[in-house]
Formats: sequence, structure tokens, C-alpha cells
Amino acid sequence: MITVYAFRSLPPIVRGYVRDIRVRWALEEAGLSYEQKLITQDDQKTESYRALQPFGQVPVFEEDGLVLFESGAIVHHIAQRSEALMPSASDVAGRARVLQWMFAALNSIEPVVQQLTEIDLFHADKPWAKERKPMLVERLDGRLGGLSRRLDGRDYLEGRFTAADVLMGHVLRFMRDELDRFSVLAAYRKRCEARPAFQKALADHLAAFG
Amino acid sequence: MITVYAFRSLPPIVRGYVRDIRVRWALEEAGLSYEQKLITQDDQKTESYRALQPFGQVPVFEEDGLVLFESGAIVHHIAQRSEALMPSASDVAGRARVLQWMFAALNSIEPVVQQLTEIDLFHADKPWAKERKPMLVERLDGRLGGLSRRLDGRDYLEGRFTAADVLMGHVLRFMRDELDRFSVLAAYRKRCEARPAFQKALADHLAAFG
Repeated sequence: MITVYAFRSLPPIVRGYVRDIRVRWALEEAGLSYEQKLITQDDQKTESYRALQPFGQVPVFEEDGLVLFESGAIVHHIAQRSEALMPSASDVAGRARVLQWMFAALNSIEPVVQQLTEIDLFHADKPWAKERKPMLVERLDGRLGGLSRRLDGRDYLEGRFTAADVLMGHVLRFMRDELDRFSVLAAYRKRCEARPAFQKALADHLAAFG
Repeated sequence: MITVYAFRSLPPIVRGYVRDIRVRWALEEAGLSYEQKLITQDDQKTESYRALQPFGQVPVFEEDGLVLFESGAIVHHIAQRSEALMPSASDVAGRARVLQWMFAALNSIEPVVQQLTEIDLFHADKPWAKERKPMLVERLDGRLGGLSRRLDGRDYLEGRFTAADVLMGHVLRFMRDELDRFSVLAAYRKRCEARPAFQKALADHLAAFG
């Protein structure tokens, strides 16, 4: 049995955005069932949880003695089992391109999105944030422009839905009005979020908060 | 033949730190030869280069019609061919753990390191940077503390050297005095940088600048 660790409680402002959603979504797309193990923000700091996840974050994935952290690696591990998320093992180039977009989501797009989200949610009125924000908006526009040109005319990053869209779709969820300037990306995000597997994953994530 | 794209010229301050080094290093560890294709900062902006790399960055990897960007994905693609960088394909759990640390390097450690490096190199005297920096130092210390506990008593992330150490070793190169507080990490970085494959990769990267 697969176990996914997620939070039992969260501030309302971040509910619906935490990374266990990525893992739940991939499992739903692959048709794999799982149990959730809900932890508190106190559990996060314990030595026993740090032995599973060195940075104290969620999600953690457990199955038959294998313990994995990092949502990107967990989603890849799930994807290798299911052609719903990745080409078959014989398509080495196809699999490499899916992983390329997974890293693009988490290393080229998310770090910029995250800096901007942090400012908008937690520091919007602070002088440093007002000085810093225009630089980040310019950088993000460059990255989103590149992504938008690649997605133009395609439903998903590699044409058909893959594990890369789980990560990219989730990363783009953090953006608000920035996406108004990129209609291709706004439509792509909507397409990702409309998938029944995403809707189920989001509902199960939210249900944990009662 | 494998081709790796890298820069022909760079400001001295960033020489030795660009991500083509990760790919060169992995290729050296795997014993695979390659050609380099050097581009200028003008080439970076062209449509033809953006067709290879949507964000205009280096490195790009080409071989037999396969074009890959994102250093994490390229290093993984190389690593799958060589047990010098990754367990064999039959060790599914072992390979998943290597990829877990690759994502940890590029999604849990690098984004914080990069924000701090950007401040130190380019904005050190600006008021916003002085206000922002302590938050980033605190966050980085949390991440490095977690990493340090995992590496304590081990030579490399998974015991023996893997592709994960190529990425983590390179990410840690960006840090200066922050590493003084983490002797385990300082020793780990030194161990990574002492590898002949890293030394060769670095020399070839630097040789491009004449």
C-alpha cells in the first residue's frame, strides 16, 4: 500500500496549494490507490519526521520500505509505472523530454513564481518588497513568455498529458493576475485543473482540513 | 556524437559557476566524450536558439536528434547510461533515491542559495537587499541544517558518488562564508570538487573564455 503524508491543518490562504496535491494528482491519473497520513505542524519538527524528510516538508511517499521525498521525484516514480503519465520505458528520448519539463517546472519556473507569491501573500506592504517586485515580474515574464511560445498550439507540454503537466499545472496555480498577460498559459492551466484526477486530488487534499 | 552548448564569454564574476559545468562533469564521470558549441549572449536571444532552449539559457544537450535542456534532466539522461552515476535499471528504489536528491538540490536548496547569491553579487548595498537578506539566511540555514544531518558520516548523498552529487556539489559551490557554519557540508563540497572529473569539467568550461 502507498502512503502519502500531508498536513492535517493549514492556514486558509495556502490550502489548495501544497505539494501533496501533485502526488495525489499523479496517483489519480495512474489509477493507483493510496492512504494518507496526516501530520501537524508540530510533527513536522520532530526528529522522527526529519528522518523521513530532512527539510520537514510534505509530501513524503512510502511503499514497501521505500521512502521518498521531493514531489518531483515522487511524481516521476509514480509516472514510470503508468503510460497515463509517461511514455513506455523503451522510449528513452520521450521519457527524457518529460523529465526535462518536470525540471523546467521546478527549477526554471517555480523559483520565480515562489518569490513573487511570497511577496504578494506575506510582504506586499513592506518597502523592500515594493523595490524588489518589479525585477521579479520582469524575470517571470521572460520565463512565462518562453513557456507560452512552446505551449502555443499544444494541449500539453509534450502534446498529450504527462507527469510534466502535473508539476507545471500545479506551479502555475500560484499565479493570479500575472497570467492575464499569457492567454495560452491561462487556457493551459484551466485545461489541467479541469481534469477529473486533479479535481479528485484537490478535493481529497481539502477534505483533510475538515 | 554528443554536443553541449555553453557560453563563449561571460563576466569574470560568474565564470566557473554556469550550469554547463554540471553536464560536462557528468559526462567526464561517465567517460563519454563530447563536443562543445560555444554561443554568445546575442545568440542566446535568437529565435533559433529559443527553439532549442525556451528560456534562452545554457546548457543544451544534443545527440542523434534528441535535444534536451534543463541541467537536471540532462545529467539524469547521462546518468542512466553509466553505473558511475546511478544504480543499474533493476534497482528501481535506488534510482528513485538518486532522483530525489537531484530534485532536492535544484528545488529545495538551489532556489534559496540563488536568491542569496543574487543579493550578495549584485544588490549588496541596496536597502531592499539588506532588509530581505536575514530572512533568506534563516531559511537557508534550515535547509543546510537538514542536508548536513543527512550527510554526516557519509561521503556522498547515497553513500557512494552519484549524479545527485554532481548537482548538489555544484549548487553548494555558490556559497561563500555561509558554509563556515556547516563543516560537514564544507568537507562534502571539497570532496566533490577534488574529483578529477570535476576538475576536468571546470578547466574545459574556463578554457572556453580563452
